[in-house]
Amino acid sequence: MQPFELTIEHAAAAIAARTLSPVELVDSVLDRCDAVEQRLHAYVTVVADRARQDARRAEKEIRDGLHRGPLHGIPYGLKDLFDVSGIPTTASSRVWAERMPDGDSTVATRLAAAGAILIGKTHTHEFAYGLLTPQTANPWHADAIAGGSSGGSAVAVAAGSALFALGTDTGGSIRIPAALNGMVGLKPTYGLVSRHGVAPLAWSLDHVGPIARTVRDTATVLSALAGHDPADPASAAAPAHAPAAYPADPRGLLGLRGLRVGVPDTYYFDRVDPQVEAAVRETVELLRELGAAVTPVKLPLVEHMEATQWGLMAPEASAVHEETLRAAPHLYGPDIRLLLEAGSRVSALDYLRAQRTRSLISDAWIRLFGGVDVLIAPTSPITAARRGQETVRWPDGVTETVTDAYVRLSSPANITGFPALSLPVGTDSAGLPIGAQLIAAPFSESVLFRVGTVIEEQRTDTGGPADVPRTVAIHESSDS
Amino acid sequence: MQPFELTIEHAAAAIAARTLSPVELVDSVLDRCDAVEQRLHAYVTVVADRARQDARRAEKEIRDGLHRGPLHGIPYGLKDLFDVSGIPTTASSRVWAERMPDGDSTVATRLAAAGAILIGKTHTHEFAYGLLTPQTANPWHADAIAGGSSGGSAVAVAAGSALFALGTDTGGSIRIPAALNGMVGLKPTYGLVSRHGVAPLAWSLDHVGPIARTVRDTATVLSALAGHDPADPASAAAPAHAPAAYPADPRGLLGLRGLRVGVPDTYYFDRVDPQVEAAVRETVELLRELGAAVTPVKLPLVEHMEATQWGLMAPEASAVHEETLRAAPHLYGPDIRLLLEAGSRVSALDYLRAQRTRSLISDAWIRLFGGVDVLIAPTSPITAARRGQETVRWPDGVTETVTDAYVRLSSPANITGFPALSLPVGTDSAGLPIGAQLIAAPFSESVLFRVGTVIEEQRTDTGGPADVPRTVAIHESSDS
Repeated sequence: MQPFELTIEHAAAAIAARTLSPVELVDSVLDRCDAVEQRLHAYVTVVADRARQDARRAEKEIRDGLHRGPLHGIPYGLKDLFDVSGIPTTASSRVWAERMPDGDSTVATRLAAAGAILIGKTHTHEFAYGLLTPQTANPWHADAIAGGSSGGSAVAVAAGSALFALGTDTGGSIRIPAALNGMVGLKPTYGLVSRHGVAPLAWSLDHVGPIARTVRDTATVLSALAGHDPADPASAAAPAHAPAAYPADPRGLLGLRGLRVGVPDTYYFDRVDPQVEAAVRETVELLRELGAAVTPVKLPLVEHMEATQWGLMAPEASAVHEETLRAAPHLYGPDIRLLLEAGSRVSALDYLRAQRTRSLISDAWIRLFGGVDVLIAPTSPITAARRGQETVRWPDGVTETVTDAYVRLSSPANITGFPALSLPVGTDSAGLPIGAQLIAAPFSESVLFRVGTVIEEQRTDTGGPADVPRTVAIHESSDS
Repeated sequence: MQPFELTIEHAAAAIAARTLSPVELVDSVLDRCDAVEQRLHAYVTVVADRARQDARRAEKEIRDGLHRGPLHGIPYGLKDLFDVSGIPTTASSRVWAERMPDGDSTVATRLAAAGAILIGKTHTHEFAYGLLTPQTANPWHADAIAGGSSGGSAVAVAAGSALFALGTDTGGSIRIPAALNGMVGLKPTYGLVSRHGVAPLAWSLDHVGPIARTVRDTATVLSALAGHDPADPASAAAPAHAPAAYPADPRGLLGLRGLRVGVPDTYYFDRVDPQVEAAVRETVELLRELGAAVTPVKLPLVEHMEATQWGLMAPEASAVHEETLRAAPHLYGPDIRLLLEAGSRVSALDYLRAQRTRSLISDAWIRLFGGVDVLIAPTSPITAARRGQETVRWPDGVTETVTDAYVRLSSPANITGFPALSLPVGTDSAGLPIGAQLIAAPFSESVLFRVGTVIEEQRTDTGGPADVPRTVAIHESSDS
């Protein structure tokens, strides 16, 4: 096994035991990056020299007895919406071709303080406004999409070009590419992780979170990210949500007795690929066997989800881009330009209707989670679509765009701000990963980690148990 | 002196000493009401039988040793936007001609628990969407407007038809009629007083608060109103803002040494009637003489105030009335129908621009109040306008609608949610009251009460010191 294949957990243990040096680990990841980038295009920018320099500093600090914790010396990728001083933030857009940031995003500062080592900036669907990340390829299948908008982050982690990466999630943009690439992705509770220095898509829906290879690794990264930041107006007050609340819970490994698991009996299983549904329902059975009390739940107001998501997202995104769109519309890709122009025509009444519906939905969810600890559902109704595929046709005759299909099951957690974790629960007949989504009450990330770890430890058909890394062999492109 | 002329403070003392019974007090107020209502029209509904019954119960409770506190047996009026079981809520509109509420507004419940006695429901400008309250007359001058939208509440208190009343304030609707009728009006911090069961105008700007004859009376009423209410989504969490935080501060009476008073050097004194300006500046001098440190302050972003207020208020109001306006537009008065129709054409981009500007303004105010404890400014650039007067012409040639003039100086405290107290500081050459406005940092109502009480105790030209009630003689209408 090469160092780039390690989980954070095992790499950190080896670094702490001085059987692995950060320099060796970073070199391994950079070599892997060299080997796969031409095919995968996960990165916009790779900062190899800076990474090697950081690795030498980490090596020296650790040798000198200054060990910063489990992320010290761990190489990571950052979606190219996050500002880091001295490196352009491009948002994978021609609009920001020349943009150098003023300073560091809060999470980049936090990760630097934890000793993590930046490998580079990963591709996003332009300004995070799409679910495809067309620049980037899915490492599991040459003709499959990476998913998005944090496609570069998920692919970098899956391919071994980073041990973890950060993404943003406004309608599913962390969870969907995590699911499509067989990785674990967390959209934390709204307000738990600062968005300062991160290009906004729609500020009332935007979340920053980690993508990693295991649930425990995801928890480790969240611990470094979480906490109050006055520079993000939506940041939640600190005391209740200290990072220390997220260690891996050892009791979680012993079973799930007493855990109340809700399984939506509509919506989340409507128009879902049968292979996806089967994998998620198998996971539900696993939870039941481990002692969880599984109950069907009826989700309220689901018929308003799509209109609410778009009613909030479209005008907020258009407000963010208003001036640039007016000044240089031709610099935007045609897909997002169309969305931005449509969003600028939404009426305040429609926006306010979406806001009010969101309040009703959130209130209903708070009541719902009085009766369950966690919801389980597919992350996405389909696995990775083929490049160029525009629609999905369902057995009931309904045709849906690929984008609508991907957003459909992930956006409810954006509308409500509840935390949601996607983790791999199998593969379909084409060998493409299937993701299940766990959703908990606000600031109950520890429940997600507990249940997610149990699922991960029990399954052996998704790349093996947690101590076998989930980096995948890179498939040859059919057209190369 | 008749009982209806008493302040809450003196009436409560007399009730506690059993030299005045609630029955006697309520009878006196109801008699006064009978005598003046035909001229003033402060009330939509007077519930005399219910009030007499409540007074007998209060009398018995007090006789039996159950004294509920300073509002026990005190008669009050409620703006006709507040629900009370068994009494129609009309919003002074034909749209709600038939509307019976489902239950009590939270503040009505709180006042009932405090033993206050409801005299009736007072007139509002239709649905609170205007500054005139045309149904109601100003008791100080037969041809002057009452101001609004809480015009009935201010006039009832001024005339002696209630010892206090509640109003709502979305752009000045408590402070303006308080100022125009020589009363004290408080718009508390956003979130401090519940709006549950109160018809909304624009939910992000709406505040519930008291109108009374003295600052101390206003503080007494606020103590009964304030506190967390889960039924109002904007209600602030309880612990920091316990009602016990608002007793009259005895040290306040001894001087103002150490108090930092900010006087805006622009905006709040631009296009202000010279008599109004002179009365406010005299009050500033008074504060200086009493030991306060007076400094000029520059208010940021003032050029955006009007657009921000309207950009938030108009679409929110139209969202509230969307269905009714579609179903029965003819039932609305022409002025508010026009506003509602205009508001429904606002774009989401404009609304979001107003929201974002509000954030910038609020941030700037928070910084500003790091350097001052209280701002002082005119409540309104003009005293009560004449009935039928539509515009104000300023010496610089600018013509402004009466409505715009009234909103101009009061809306900043709605946009920011900072608490603002209007209190009388003189009269103009026509004998019409002039109001000054004190503004403090969020949840610093105690600072407003301290400074307001000092001003009130020192002045003798606005109806005398606090122990002389401010009920006014009722002027004959010129056309009666």
